[in-house]
Amino acid sequence: MISDQTYLLKFGENVLKRRTELKLSYRQLAQKCDLDFSAISKIEKGQKSLEFQTIIELAKGLDIHPRELFDFDFPINKV
Amino acid sequence: MISDQTYLLKFGENVLKRRTELKLSYRQLAQKCDLDFSAISKIEKGQKSLEFQTIIELAKGLDIHPRELFDFDFPINKV
Repeated sequence: MISDQTYLLKFGENVLKRRTELKLSYRQLAQKCDLDFSAISKIEKGQKSLEFQTIIELAKGLDIHPRELFDFDFPINKV
Repeated sequence: MISDQTYLLKFGENVLKRRTELKLSYRQLAQKCDLDFSAISKIEKGQKSLEFQTIIELAKGLDIHPRELFDFDFPINKV
């Protein structure tokens, strides 16, 4: 069974991917979404869980729909 | 500016929509995703923030990709 930690890591990878696309430093992104820059580094490494509001703030700072940050494989039993 | 509360409400509406699609009661969904059934009712009404892990648990219980629970309008400045 895929652990929740795996999804947190994949979410973090999507944050990193978008941040580097926008050529934003930790500090620049942190300022845009009112987060501490060390929190962003931990989120990108899947080392920090996050609240719904933080997901929304990150999406705003990254100018991306929050749905895109959940763009990873997820098993569904479509019956 | 759209408040974060609005997104929480839209997220809750997506949970409600999927739960009723599956004809699950609060209690049945609560059992499937190891949450308290009163928490689900509050989440559906946008009255309760939630952690990343809870979003993943809800998606598993609803047999839906977590991305779909973020299916709502979100302003992006695509330049």
